[in-house]
Amino acid sequence: MPQKVRIALDAMGGDVGASVIIPGAAVSLSRHPDTEFLLFGDSALIEAQLAKHPALKAASRVIHTDVAISMQEKPSQALRRGRRTSSMWLAIDAVKKGKADVAVSAGNTGALMAMARFNLHMLPGIDRPAIAAVWPTMRGDSVVLDLGATIGGDAHHLMALAVMGGAMASVLFNLERPTVGLLNIGVEEVKGGEEIREAAELLRAMNLPQLEYVGFVEGDGIGKGAADVIVTEGFSGNIALKAAEGTARQINEFLREALSRTWRTKIGYLFAKNAFKALRDKLDPRKSNGGVLLGLRGVVVKSHGGTDAEGFAYAVDVGYEMAHYDLLTKINQMLNRNGSALVQTAPEDVS
Amino acid sequence: MPQKVRIALDAMGGDVGASVIIPGAAVSLSRHPDTEFLLFGDSALIEAQLAKHPALKAASRVIHTDVAISMQEKPSQALRRGRRTSSMWLAIDAVKKGKADVAVSAGNTGALMAMARFNLHMLPGIDRPAIAAVWPTMRGDSVVLDLGATIGGDAHHLMALAVMGGAMASVLFNLERPTVGLLNIGVEEVKGGEEIREAAELLRAMNLPQLEYVGFVEGDGIGKGAADVIVTEGFSGNIALKAAEGTARQINEFLREALSRTWRTKIGYLFAKNAFKALRDKLDPRKSNGGVLLGLRGVVVKSHGGTDAEGFAYAVDVGYEMAHYDLLTKINQMLNRNGSALVQTAPEDVS
Repeated sequence: MPQKVRIALDAMGGDVGASVIIPGAAVSLSRHPDTEFLLFGDSALIEAQLAKHPALKAASRVIHTDVAISMQEKPSQALRRGRRTSSMWLAIDAVKKGKADVAVSAGNTGALMAMARFNLHMLPGIDRPAIAAVWPTMRGDSVVLDLGATIGGDAHHLMALAVMGGAMASVLFNLERPTVGLLNIGVEEVKGGEEIREAAELLRAMNLPQLEYVGFVEGDGIGKGAADVIVTEGFSGNIALKAAEGTARQINEFLREALSRTWRTKIGYLFAKNAFKALRDKLDPRKSNGGVLLGLRGVVVKSHGGTDAEGFAYAVDVGYEMAHYDLLTKINQMLNRNGSALVQTAPEDVS
Repeated sequence: MPQKVRIALDAMGGDVGASVIIPGAAVSLSRHPDTEFLLFGDSALIEAQLAKHPALKAASRVIHTDVAISMQEKPSQALRRGRRTSSMWLAIDAVKKGKADVAVSAGNTGALMAMARFNLHMLPGIDRPAIAAVWPTMRGDSVVLDLGATIGGDAHHLMALAVMGGAMASVLFNLERPTVGLLNIGVEEVKGGEEIREAAELLRAMNLPQLEYVGFVEGDGIGKGAADVIVTEGFSGNIALKAAEGTARQINEFLREALSRTWRTKIGYLFAKNAFKALRDKLDPRKSNGGVLLGLRGVVVKSHGGTDAEGFAYAVDVGYEMAHYDLLTKINQMLNRNGSALVQTAPEDVS
């Protein structure tokens, strides 16, 4: 991609809005100078922030709108009120109209998904969207999906997740044939619901050229890096993610308490400060910020609503990489290369 | 309960068997001297271990059997081969025949559940079993269920889990009216599958005297101690538990690495050793060992198969407490006190 990466930002999204979004974009721009931004939202608020970031100002165009979707609005309400007018809609619409390669928003997840689906439509062969993100593991990083876009789903849905997650991993980690595992409550063949066992059978039988199916992975296998891609429906994916985040926070809290208990432990903390800094860096949830909405005819990235500028910059980075390495084309290729791979349902139908 | 607590042990269960089970029982006995044991398994192996633990020997009766269920056997296979003869079956059967108050096994989970269900039968109003365990949180401990006994389930099933988990929490934590939350992917009313929203409505409408329903809890709410009891079906419960365990292990590994990197961090480690010891103690997975099989006409406790004697002792402790405080009667009371509480399905049917 010789031309610049064009990123559309919902400058009003998130708990804080422009004063986080704009500095965040500036940080990401400093890492990827070949980026152009379209900034949608209240131009007065945006310009006030841009004044502090001249390099970003030079790389941006501001498109004013008064309408912003709040974090509390229900998806249906957001669609009614914000369709065609809100900063969120306009950012997505820029992708649809080919004016941007990717849209990034820290706004209301439900509204973002509803608008993305309504405006961009689903890819052929994909019924329902998914959210995928990078999960730091002991072996490096893995892509985990679905983190909460769609509750439940049949074998066909899980197959679609495997293919899209595989595409994302091959783009992000530069892998020819990423390994893919299905999240389950045991590694034996008999474990899990019928849809999971059926998906396993299909993945094994189809032996797709673009991904290597490695079997079932249990909840603790994610952190071990048991596969490059971990696939599950959105309910358990979200629970896994939040349970892991909660545990990390809990341990951090325990550790802080334990270290401040006596003068000896306090001295120990001073000496080992760099180790704790390294640990904090490694576990920094901001670094895993940026969930990619998959299954749509366009790339949309969701940032945590409560993150700061540094955190939002990571979500913009994710958007940059997805666009730069052309995730969408990759997914389309994968879907097509297998002909009607995702329409197949019985293993005997494939060679 | 003035008389002793009688615990039936599957002395062959687990990855190792008698050489973990017997020393584990000895540790638990030292904490609860008012315990009697029935030890089922290969008497030669058991007696060899008992010789090293005279106090336990004095408090135990050994019942010999040659048949042991392996960790790999499928439930159906285990039932066929080990019914009426295996150490696992006989331990459960002692509970059924009233010769023991509780059975504890570190054996094959699927086989244990199948045998317990087959031999003890379900409680009236309960369709399917659950596994509950204690989860250490920032506020103390919570009971979390189902950790993997039953995949999926309707609103009725989730209600049953709430009532049984509530009984366990009130027994374990000595609470009049434990708080109960439903695990979900958001706290708003519209989140989650239909069965969860329906269960929430029922719990709110019924306003049971023995538990206080506090709403939806997200995955990171478990570690925060958002409720005394966290209820979810077995797939997501298992995923949450394993994801949390995996994260704890991962952080521990990162920390170990970070601390051994330079001479400064090594010195820091030496000074802060006690803090790390406290953290390790707090997070020791052995201390949360012991999952209680709920929904049966008898109490059965499942220990991790891979634990050591210290870990198995915690599972025996759980069995002791469940029997000592008469969990089963408590559950029955709860089920009865509300008349047909669990048979109700529409909120308007209850006052």
